[in-house]
Amino acid sequence: MVAIVGIGHTKFGQRKDASLRDLMFEAVQKVFNDSGLSPKDIDAMYTAVCGDGFAGQLSPGMLGPDIAGLLHKPNMRVEAACATGSSAIHAAYASIKADLYDRVLVLGAEKMLQVTTPEAIQIMGMAGDLQWESVFGVTFPAYYAMLATAHMAKYGTTEEQLAKVAIKNHHYGAKNPVAQFQKEITLEKALNAAMVAYPLKLFDCCPLTDGAAAVILSKEDIAREDNDTPVYIEGLGSASDHVSLMDRKTLTSLVGAVQAAKTAHNMAKTNIKDIHIACVHDCFTIAEILAYEDLGICERGRGGKFIEEEGSYIGGKLPINVDGGLKSKGHPIGATGVSQAVEIVKQLRGEAEKGRQVPDAERGLVHNVGGSGHYAFVTIYGRR
Amino acid sequence: MVAIVGIGHTKFGQRKDASLRDLMFEAVQKVFNDSGLSPKDIDAMYTAVCGDGFAGQLSPGMLGPDIAGLLHKPNMRVEAACATGSSAIHAAYASIKADLYDRVLVLGAEKMLQVTTPEAIQIMGMAGDLQWESVFGVTFPAYYAMLATAHMAKYGTTEEQLAKVAIKNHHYGAKNPVAQFQKEITLEKALNAAMVAYPLKLFDCCPLTDGAAAVILSKEDIAREDNDTPVYIEGLGSASDHVSLMDRKTLTSLVGAVQAAKTAHNMAKTNIKDIHIACVHDCFTIAEILAYEDLGICERGRGGKFIEEEGSYIGGKLPINVDGGLKSKGHPIGATGVSQAVEIVKQLRGEAEKGRQVPDAERGLVHNVGGSGHYAFVTIYGRR
Repeated sequence: MVAIVGIGHTKFGQRKDASLRDLMFEAVQKVFNDSGLSPKDIDAMYTAVCGDGFAGQLSPGMLGPDIAGLLHKPNMRVEAACATGSSAIHAAYASIKADLYDRVLVLGAEKMLQVTTPEAIQIMGMAGDLQWESVFGVTFPAYYAMLATAHMAKYGTTEEQLAKVAIKNHHYGAKNPVAQFQKEITLEKALNAAMVAYPLKLFDCCPLTDGAAAVILSKEDIAREDNDTPVYIEGLGSASDHVSLMDRKTLTSLVGAVQAAKTAHNMAKTNIKDIHIACVHDCFTIAEILAYEDLGICERGRGGKFIEEEGSYIGGKLPINVDGGLKSKGHPIGATGVSQAVEIVKQLRGEAEKGRQVPDAERGLVHNVGGSGHYAFVTIYGRR
Repeated sequence: MVAIVGIGHTKFGQRKDASLRDLMFEAVQKVFNDSGLSPKDIDAMYTAVCGDGFAGQLSPGMLGPDIAGLLHKPNMRVEAACATGSSAIHAAYASIKADLYDRVLVLGAEKMLQVTTPEAIQIMGMAGDLQWESVFGVTFPAYYAMLATAHMAKYGTTEEQLAKVAIKNHHYGAKNPVAQFQKEITLEKALNAAMVAYPLKLFDCCPLTDGAAAVILSKEDIAREDNDTPVYIEGLGSASDHVSLMDRKTLTSLVGAVQAAKTAHNMAKTNIKDIHIACVHDCFTIAEILAYEDLGICERGRGGKFIEEEGSYIGGKLPINVDGGLKSKGHPIGATGVSQAVEIVKQLRGEAEKGRQVPDAERGLVHNVGGSGHYAFVTIYGRR
C-alpha cells in the first residue's frame, strides 16, 4: 500500500502575484510544512504541468527539482491533459509499489493566465483532435457542448439542471478559502449569463486558473510514522478513448471513465456504495452530470434529476465537489488532479472548512478526465 | 525483472511522407510484427512525445491509443525533454514491477520538421531556462557550446577531437539503414563546416528529425514465452540538475548523468567494465565526450583523447553509438530514448547490420539526457 502523508495547496485564482515557479514553490512549502518532512526525506518527484504554451517553457517539469530542493534526484513530467495531476499520482504510486522509492513528491501546477484569454482558448482548443476537429474551429467548450446537447436530446436533461450543478459548486466554493470564486450564484444569474457554446453558458464553464498543489506519497511501512492520519491509495484505474468525438460509440458517456472506475473498484474491492465523498471532473456542468452516471452514482440518464434532487449535496446520496469543483475552486490544469487528492485527504482527515466537511468520511473517490475524455483516471482513497 | 520482448523503429529523417500519426503507426506496426503480439496482449501504454509545439497538438500523448489499437486501456504521456523516451521506459518498467500490468507498450515519436527551422530552433531554445537564459537569446546549441568551451579551457579538448566524435558516428550511421544521414564525413569537411555556436560547427550538432520507435515490455515470467531472446532491464537510474547553467557547480560534467549511472549500476550490480556496448546522448559532439567521462568509460578530462584513440569504435575499449548516435541516426526528441533501447536490443540479439554489430554483446547501457542536463536517465540492459 501507498499513502498520502502530506498535502499542500495554493490559493487558486488569477494569481498576478505569482509566476509558475512561485506557485510551485508555494505548494512545495505547504506540503513540507503539512508533512513535517523535508527534501532530504524524499527520493524522487513527478512534476505535473500540462501545456508548454501556458508556461512558455518546453519541458516545464524541469523546473521542479530546483524549486523542491530535490536536485540530483529522479524527476519526470507526467501529462494527461486535464488529468495530468492524477496521472502523476498514478505514476508515483507505481514507482513506490515497484520498490524504486520510499517517498515521492508529486507537484502539479499551471499558470494559465500568463497568456491572453484568446491565446489560452487557442491552446485549450489544441487539446481536441487537431487533425480532424480543432483545426476546423472547435473550441474546448464546444466539445463539451456537443456532449451536452446529446445528453439533452437522449435523456431530456435541461439547461436548468446544468445550471444547478454550478449553483451547488459555487455554494461550496464560497466556503473554501482556496477557491477562485468564493461567491454563491443564483439560477437566474446562471441562466441569463452569456452563451459560450450552446447550451453551455458562462457559469457552465470552469475558469482559467493559476494554481499549484502537491502531495507526498509514502510506502506503507513508513506512512504511519510520517503521519497520524495517512490516507491510503486503495485503488486506481485509468483508460483512454478515441481522440476524435466522431469515432466514439456514444456521446452521452465517457467510456474511459466507466472503465477506469471499474478497474479502481476492483483493485480496492469496493463499489460506489462504499464511497463517502467524491471529487469529479466538472470542467463543464455537463461533465459532472456524465460523472454521476459513469460512476454509477445514479442511473444512466438520471444525472439531471440527481442534481435537481440535491443528491450530490452534503446530506444527499453522495457529496460531490464540496470543495467547489473545477467550476468554482478553479482548474489550473496540471494541478487539478493533485488538488482533488488534497481535498479528499482533507475530508478524510476531518480538516475541511465548516459547512463543507462531510461527516465521518472514511473513503473518497477522485474522477479526473483529460481532454474531452481522451484520458480518465479514477483513484480511491481510504483511511484506516 | 522486466524485459523488452519487441522492438519497432521507423526510418529517421525528413519524413515528408509521414505525419506524427503516420510515424507512430509505422513504429507500432513494426513492434507488433517483431514481437508476434497484438493489441489484445497489451495492458497499457506510455506515449513519449516531447513538444506540444512541434505537433501543434496539446497533450500529444492522446494520439497513442487510437493508433496502437489500445483504446479504453491506460495511457499517459511521459516527458523529460530529450530524455522523454527513456523516462517513458522507466515509468513503464515501474508499472509492471508494481504489478499493475503484465505487458506495456512504450511509443516514442516526434515530428520536428513540420514547423520551419527557425520555429524549431525557437521551440528547442525553450528547453533551457526560460526565465533567466533562453529569454536572452540563448539557443540550444549555445548551451552545449558553453559546456564545450569550459571543457576546452579546463582540459585542452580540441575542435579536432570534437569533430572526431562526429566522424565516428557518421561512419557507423552510414551502415544503419534507419539513420537520417548514411554518409561518412571527413575531418576537413567537419572543421570547415558553418559555425553554429563556437566551437560547435554544423557537424558537431545533431539534426532535427522526424521519427518514431516502440518497445514492448513484459513481466519476467511471461517474457521468455513472448520472445526467445528477451532483453532484461537490469538497472535503471535517473537524476535532475539545476535548470540554469549559472547555478551549476561545474560545466565540465553533467552531475545528473553521473548520479543516474551510479543508481543504475547499483541496481544491476554492475560497473562500467561489465558493459559491452553503449548508446550515449550525443546531441552535440561535446555531449558524447562528457558522457565518456560521466559514465567512467575514461578518466575525467580524457574524453577528447579517448575518441582520438578510437576507444569508442568497435574493437576499442567500449563501442559507443555504433548506430550513428543522435548525430547521424537523428534525434526525434520523444523517440530517441526508445530508439536507443531498440538499438541495444538489436545488438544483444545479434541482429545489427554488418560492420556495426558488436561481437558477443551481452550487456548494454543507454545514457539519455534531457535539456542541457536537466534530466539524465541511464538504463542497463542484459540478455541471459
